[in-house]
Amino acid sequence: MKNFTSPISYLKRVPDSTVRRLSLYLGFLEELEDSGEATVSSDVLARLGGTTSAQVRKDLSIFGSFGKRGLGYFVPELTTRLREILGLGRDWHVAIVGAGKIGLALAQYPGFREKGFHVSALYDASPAKVGTRLDSIPVRDVHRLASDAAKEHFDIGVIAVPADDAQFVADTMVAAGIKAIMNFAPAQITVPADVVTRTVNMGLEFEALSFALANLSK
Amino acid sequence: MKNFTSPISYLKRVPDSTVRRLSLYLGFLEELEDSGEATVSSDVLARLGGTTSAQVRKDLSIFGSFGKRGLGYFVPELTTRLREILGLGRDWHVAIVGAGKIGLALAQYPGFREKGFHVSALYDASPAKVGTRLDSIPVRDVHRLASDAAKEHFDIGVIAVPADDAQFVADTMVAAGIKAIMNFAPAQITVPADVVTRTVNMGLEFEALSFALANLSK
Repeated sequence: MKNFTSPISYLKRVPDSTVRRLSLYLGFLEELEDSGEATVSSDVLARLGGTTSAQVRKDLSIFGSFGKRGLGYFVPELTTRLREILGLGRDWHVAIVGAGKIGLALAQYPGFREKGFHVSALYDASPAKVGTRLDSIPVRDVHRLASDAAKEHFDIGVIAVPADDAQFVADTMVAAGIKAIMNFAPAQITVPADVVTRTVNMGLEFEALSFALANLSK
Repeated sequence: MKNFTSPISYLKRVPDSTVRRLSLYLGFLEELEDSGEATVSSDVLARLGGTTSAQVRKDLSIFGSFGKRGLGYFVPELTTRLREILGLGRDWHVAIVGAGKIGLALAQYPGFREKGFHVSALYDASPAKVGTRLDSIPVRDVHRLASDAAKEHFDIGVIAVPADDAQFVADTMVAAGIKAIMNFAPAQITVPADVVTRTVNMGLEFEALSFALANLSK
């Protein structure tokens, strides 16, 4: 019997800020690898990541023992391990709901596929869009999402619909067994504890800056 | 003499999560206003914002007394006040550094201007881009940023350059007196305490989902 408790508690031990830094380290390591660097010190990673070398060592120590005292980290080895840790070595199947501007842009973004995120299908409610194709990706009726998910096993659901529809789409994804949701809608979505969500909303972030400026200049 | 301490401590009392919800409430209120609704209850705002009515009342009470018992909030009044609170009633001058994909997309996005964010100039290091124009927005040499900022008073600086250049651009913005920075680079930037920054990075957010999935399925 699969134990669902332990991986979740393991996840909870790794703070969001650490995962974010792991992504940043990986980005720098890929550049170092491209330029043929064999090793890198925690000092250099810390400087690139805007943190301290103690923090770099702490972040990496969660996942095992890396690096050699005096030599630093081996670039190809650490790059490979970070890709594995971040789940970038495999293919994730992505279903995007909302074939609007954001949904279409994401489906066509080459960098997304390169990282292993494969858009299996786009879903929309508009009869004008359903049945069309974007490159090789079909645009399907959103009502098919649940039955398709059962057959095609989507790993990640992307919500790219207006705010009003976001929770309904999230509920449909959860019911379809999707465990990871990226929300681009300007709405807070509520999901069960075993589903992971991230929100990306440029508008909200700019309004936070605007709020800060308006209240600073009072 | 202007007192810079009190507005900053006032800001610190308002959590990020509250500001984010204020933006969400405003979005819903604008829709309600468009459909001619006169009043809205904290229950309805709570449901739309994925929170509780007690939280809605608490969020709004920070900024004064709104609403009438039994009637709820007056939609046009609360909409106007939230726009003011979020600093959306005025024009913010924005300088974007990096005339690549993200920088150009942002400069051309109509919704950005509608909210009061006016892109004054784009900056780039590439001689091929400097001197060109995007619609009416000039693309200028990044080395001019500091001297231009002194004359043109930019409110918000947008970092849309590769990770390696992000901190340098941030330092230039800070030295030029810019107090609010939006960072699209996949890099952590460090700024003084009186400068507000927000980061938007889709790649990092997707990698966080990937990390969660990889470790859940172990």
